[in-house]
Amino acid sequence: MSTYLKHDEWSIVEEGFHPEKSRDSESLFSIGNGHMGQRANFEEKYSGVTLQGHYIAGIYYPDKTRVGWWKNGYPEYFAKVINAPSWIGIDVKVDGEMLDLATCKILEFRRELNMKQSVLEREFTVAMQSGIQLHVKSTRFLSITEHELGLIRYSITPLNQSVSLEILPYIDADVENEDSNYNEKFWEKTDGSCYHHEAYITSKTKKLDFNICTGMLFDVFAGGNKLTTKAHLVEEDLLLGNKVILNANSDEEIVVYKYATVVTSLDHKVSDLMQVARKKLQDANSKGFHAILKDHINEWAQKWEHSDIVIEGDVAAQQGIRFNILQLNHTYTGKDARFNIGPKGFTGEKYGGSTYWDTEAYCLPFYMATAGEEVAKNLLVYRYNHLQRAIENAEKLGFTDGAALYPMVTMNGEECHNEWEITFEEIHRNGAIAFAINSYIRYTGHESYLADKGLEVLMGISRFWAQRITFSEAKGKYVMLGVTGPNEYENNVNNNWYTNTIACWCLEYTIEALQKVKETNIARYKEIITKTAFDDKKEVGKWQDIIKNMYYPTEEKLKIFLQQDGYMDKEQILVKDLDIKNRPLNQKWSWDRILRSCYIKQADVLQGIYFLENRFDIETIRRNYEFYESRTVHESSLSPCVHSILASKIGKTDQAYELYLRTARLDLDDYNKEVREGLHITSMAGTWLSIVEGFGGMRVVDGKVGFTPSIPQGWNAYSFRIVHRGTALRIRVTTEEVMVFNEHGPDSQIMVYGKPYTVAKNSNIVAELSK
Amino acid sequence: MSTYLKHDEWSIVEEGFHPEKSRDSESLFSIGNGHMGQRANFEEKYSGVTLQGHYIAGIYYPDKTRVGWWKNGYPEYFAKVINAPSWIGIDVKVDGEMLDLATCKILEFRRELNMKQSVLEREFTVAMQSGIQLHVKSTRFLSITEHELGLIRYSITPLNQSVSLEILPYIDADVENEDSNYNEKFWEKTDGSCYHHEAYITSKTKKLDFNICTGMLFDVFAGGNKLTTKAHLVEEDLLLGNKVILNANSDEEIVVYKYATVVTSLDHKVSDLMQVARKKLQDANSKGFHAILKDHINEWAQKWEHSDIVIEGDVAAQQGIRFNILQLNHTYTGKDARFNIGPKGFTGEKYGGSTYWDTEAYCLPFYMATAGEEVAKNLLVYRYNHLQRAIENAEKLGFTDGAALYPMVTMNGEECHNEWEITFEEIHRNGAIAFAINSYIRYTGHESYLADKGLEVLMGISRFWAQRITFSEAKGKYVMLGVTGPNEYENNVNNNWYTNTIACWCLEYTIEALQKVKETNIARYKEIITKTAFDDKKEVGKWQDIIKNMYYPTEEKLKIFLQQDGYMDKEQILVKDLDIKNRPLNQKWSWDRILRSCYIKQADVLQGIYFLENRFDIETIRRNYEFYESRTVHESSLSPCVHSILASKIGKTDQAYELYLRTARLDLDDYNKEVREGLHITSMAGTWLSIVEGFGGMRVVDGKVGFTPSIPQGWNAYSFRIVHRGTALRIRVTTEEVMVFNEHGPDSQIMVYGKPYTVAKNSNIVAELSK
Repeated sequence: MSTYLKHDEWSIVEEGFHPEKSRDSESLFSIGNGHMGQRANFEEKYSGVTLQGHYIAGIYYPDKTRVGWWKNGYPEYFAKVINAPSWIGIDVKVDGEMLDLATCKILEFRRELNMKQSVLEREFTVAMQSGIQLHVKSTRFLSITEHELGLIRYSITPLNQSVSLEILPYIDADVENEDSNYNEKFWEKTDGSCYHHEAYITSKTKKLDFNICTGMLFDVFAGGNKLTTKAHLVEEDLLLGNKVILNANSDEEIVVYKYATVVTSLDHKVSDLMQVARKKLQDANSKGFHAILKDHINEWAQKWEHSDIVIEGDVAAQQGIRFNILQLNHTYTGKDARFNIGPKGFTGEKYGGSTYWDTEAYCLPFYMATAGEEVAKNLLVYRYNHLQRAIENAEKLGFTDGAALYPMVTMNGEECHNEWEITFEEIHRNGAIAFAINSYIRYTGHESYLADKGLEVLMGISRFWAQRITFSEAKGKYVMLGVTGPNEYENNVNNNWYTNTIACWCLEYTIEALQKVKETNIARYKEIITKTAFDDKKEVGKWQDIIKNMYYPTEEKLKIFLQQDGYMDKEQILVKDLDIKNRPLNQKWSWDRILRSCYIKQADVLQGIYFLENRFDIETIRRNYEFYESRTVHESSLSPCVHSILASKIGKTDQAYELYLRTARLDLDDYNKEVREGLHITSMAGTWLSIVEGFGGMRVVDGKVGFTPSIPQGWNAYSFRIVHRGTALRIRVTTEEVMVFNEHGPDSQIMVYGKPYTVAKNSNIVAELSK
Repeated sequence: MSTYLKHDEWSIVEEGFHPEKSRDSESLFSIGNGHMGQRANFEEKYSGVTLQGHYIAGIYYPDKTRVGWWKNGYPEYFAKVINAPSWIGIDVKVDGEMLDLATCKILEFRRELNMKQSVLEREFTVAMQSGIQLHVKSTRFLSITEHELGLIRYSITPLNQSVSLEILPYIDADVENEDSNYNEKFWEKTDGSCYHHEAYITSKTKKLDFNICTGMLFDVFAGGNKLTTKAHLVEEDLLLGNKVILNANSDEEIVVYKYATVVTSLDHKVSDLMQVARKKLQDANSKGFHAILKDHINEWAQKWEHSDIVIEGDVAAQQGIRFNILQLNHTYTGKDARFNIGPKGFTGEKYGGSTYWDTEAYCLPFYMATAGEEVAKNLLVYRYNHLQRAIENAEKLGFTDGAALYPMVTMNGEECHNEWEITFEEIHRNGAIAFAINSYIRYTGHESYLADKGLEVLMGISRFWAQRITFSEAKGKYVMLGVTGPNEYENNVNNNWYTNTIACWCLEYTIEALQKVKETNIARYKEIITKTAFDDKKEVGKWQDIIKNMYYPTEEKLKIFLQQDGYMDKEQILVKDLDIKNRPLNQKWSWDRILRSCYIKQADVLQGIYFLENRFDIETIRRNYEFYESRTVHESSLSPCVHSILASKIGKTDQAYELYLRTARLDLDDYNKEVREGLHITSMAGTWLSIVEGFGGMRVVDGKVGFTPSIPQGWNAYSFRIVHRGTALRIRVTTEEVMVFNEHGPDSQIMVYGKPYTVAKNSNIVAELSK
């Protein structure tokens, strides 16, 4: 566990420079605005350890697949979020010596990610090798109002003498991905222009023809006056900039305002890109740094108003949850159904791809409750738009007649993962995609989404299950062979309880959805039936037969659902009895040893119980929780939140809190020793769930939102805000009571501990905390 | 199925040039002598499709592993047999035009691999683009008596006019592996010398420091007279040669005799290599091409005397079995325990590595019966020498206390395979290595090998099994979880019957071996016990408990052994009922579909029944054979032979013959459409087994060799020869009778159809063929 950061309610703060943590800090201080994002690389040159990273939503590259042993059905490429041209660079030479925190003596250093404002600040005092002392302060943000803009204020003050400064603001298109499979570069420059205090480069990805223009425009102020002296144009092949040479007196602050833009062919005509970029920067420059920053801060205040969770009495927990909310909002704003939420967001390269089942299983509820129905719907539409590709993906694996298998990892709907036990077998992802449709409708009440788009997706998914499930003559039951469940520490197992369960749930829900659309929109129903060549009687008949005769493994003596066939043949040594030197298993044990052990990477049976909680009585939940929690090593960042929510459910608040802590500060405290690779964006949504659905006990049943709050020991109070069917509710839980306040929107019927209340607009209800 | 080759009893013949088959032919006409081998590339330039291949036994390269998703425990490199510098090159220019079969007009072409002599001949008449006609004949062989020598006689005769010839014999160190993971070259040149009619290059592998010297020396004869005119030295960076320019009259035969050598640091001091090479070539030149060829032919006559199988009345079958025997003898001569038998021998690059379990499971019996006891023993010693590395390999996977897991693929004892379901889970290979010790002793009677080397290997292997097997509280039995059996179309299964069976057999045999060594060589016994820190009572006690309480899956209704837990849950659609368009499965189906199907790649339960045949009554064998044969797709070249042998055993001679044909001409007829990559060397031993153990029914029981022959329809007779405990027996089976002749060695007690006979030296016994 790493503890070099200060605990603070609203900021991430590094005091004193920690070069050994430089890549960690680059991840942790990342900023983003949904359109683009970047690691917290330095503006000035840094010759120490660094992972340069600047990423643009929806711009990716089909890197040639690397694989040891090719298997039929593997995709030929692996789509990667790619490192884009960088616009942050400002080289500084002081009396001819390059400013570089790796080589000069650092007298003071402070870095702060102001979470309230989403502003990255850095301030340091250094002694150059020449002895000259310098104070530098930089302020950087990616505008949330003008999402194609990034701005920097960079000030340099010589402290003990007057100096000659060479300042080179530049843009650099010579970038590469650390994780390129064959050390290939993904971009080529198509054009470049360099003017006085301006520079533009257009680049194109070598495949897929994504075009972007990266541009910068800057002003330099000395003593409050804008300098107009001619700059020297610097025009290297892939680097364009302007060198400004000036003298600065002792204690005179030299300030560079750098306006940068990234515009892409996703939003503009390729031929217009450079022109659009220039116009954008000139407009920004007219408006000015401070005015744009003000808009940015105001918009972030709004975002926090909607999504903040306040924890009183626990600064570390408060900082953790705000960091998670901030980074989720950096990654995805939900304005565009072409985008999705990558596991590392804009903070690193690992995992490639942008969309896993994480989106549906973990992220959807967060965005639905805090960012609104349209945002949530866009996440569903993303999958609807990929339906045809999911059908083609299933065809590659031998399925027919419109069966759809959504990819494990994707950018554009095509599979880009290549590990047979995951790509071909971790098919439960289909279930989460169907479940998300159900969650959305349950939460918003928008039944019409089924007719509009949802039903087609459900039918493709159910057709897949009906073909993937086979009949075992030996058992006289339907079975599902050769799958990998959510617990990836088992591969190629038979009858994973979760997968069997979610598959049959899909069949049931699709039958129900067919019926609903038929009843409410017969024209659309007929249209869908025709479009999909659906044989209602035969296909639904088969589905019903499967639902009726599906096999579910159970352990009769312990009265639990069994993760898969044969699980009880394993040596049952509980996690608590396993010598800690074996942990984490994925770093200490070979894969076969992990597979044949009883240890569970992440919620599997419990994932099913979490999704379909209303099917199970509390004792069943308790028995399964106790059995599986004692065998779960939580070596996936997606695991503890589900356990935490169920622990809250069965009244184990202490354990729920312990589990909550493992995700809330996962990256800040670098539990998994990998924050250098980037942040765990999607699991951050799980932290939000742990509070809202866990401690808050929020559930939506029959169109009503309900709460069964508990509060962890040591917290004085916590509060969160959700929007449900047009009503904004703020829930505050103290050690004594539960208060629900209706901030705006119509009166709301809610439940607290199963008891109905009406919360009128601008008023609240109070209930005693159940202990 | 490809049929461009002529059927011939003693030769592989291509008449007319088939450029579309050029890579196939290069594989099929490969030659070798145990020390080195090469694909049948052309001496003169060839700009058509080609895979240049020249390989040296024991010289390999640790290529950096390529893997999509790294797993803990994977080796960092994959050892590859590497393409070595080529010495066959003879460029020919005719009036300035390069001779190249891809560009000139081919009037006649004939290529022959003379199997009796292991001589590669090529003869062609071409018209150059200039209109000049040329007749060329080349004769090439790798000396089996002087294994560091390769010789070429290359003759050129202008047919219709006198021409100016430029002849450039050369050696070329600029070689690469087609399958290099990162397009790296593996060799660097360390030195080179070029003299009149001579050239030498020393090269070193970039890792592991294998050093070799490749040298050539040549003479040119015109009209029977040796030319002495000064040659032009050609000294490019990695290519050294001599250019000879001369005029040849119409119909005048110009002959180049090229003597080449490859000497390596495995056999010589690095500093001596060039000197050794030069001396070797000068000696060879003194002796002369024809004298060396004569020795070579004589030695091959001997080899055939020992290993030939004669089939009367079926030319295709005859050619097939001889081709297999030839290529096995090209690959491995058994003179050196540092070498082993790679799956492609010296005929291609695919698979890398040199040693799979194929050696023990398939190749050992062939070499034991035809090449002698020392050769067979060297194959065992190879593994003994790798015992320490097998222990280290097991340690990497978490095993302790001297447990040994032999690698799936290796060069030097270290694992170099990286696919978790194989590398970590296809552990039955350990069983074959133990079984080979038993086979060797059973065949030769050399019980002392146990004390000498065998016991230590057995103990390491048994210690592995005892740790790998775990106790299932649920079953109240020992189980083995997460394995891949010989049938690689199942991965990560529980309780593979074959693996459970061979593991317990290993435990039993090790207990027996411990007892034997204790009784016969107590000093050595004590030495081993001390060396291995063996706790006799505790460890043997555990082994006995496992033997007694092991779980074996069975199907009670059908009374068969069950391949693994859950096999009967699969859809049981027999191979005969599967539409042919699905075959081969590994090209048509995705991996998950293969895995969850009932189809079997290669003998699995039947491999166990084959190994331990004496444990099972004939009805048990028949039931299992019928069940599994109907589900087996034989998509491994190692599969049909085991089925063929068992089919013979249960009297299904027609089916045995059908299965035999699938291996006997696998490469000649290119069944699997991949002969372009090289030959299936190890499965060739299976063809030999199909005849000797299948049709011939040879078994060794209680020190006696016995036969239960049958004969396929259409064959008039077949005969084979084995050496058993010093006696050379020739067995001839006609449609009427079985004749066993004692060629030399002491009188032999044998069994025919279970009836004992004594075959005196130089005499035979005759029995009626059982029908």
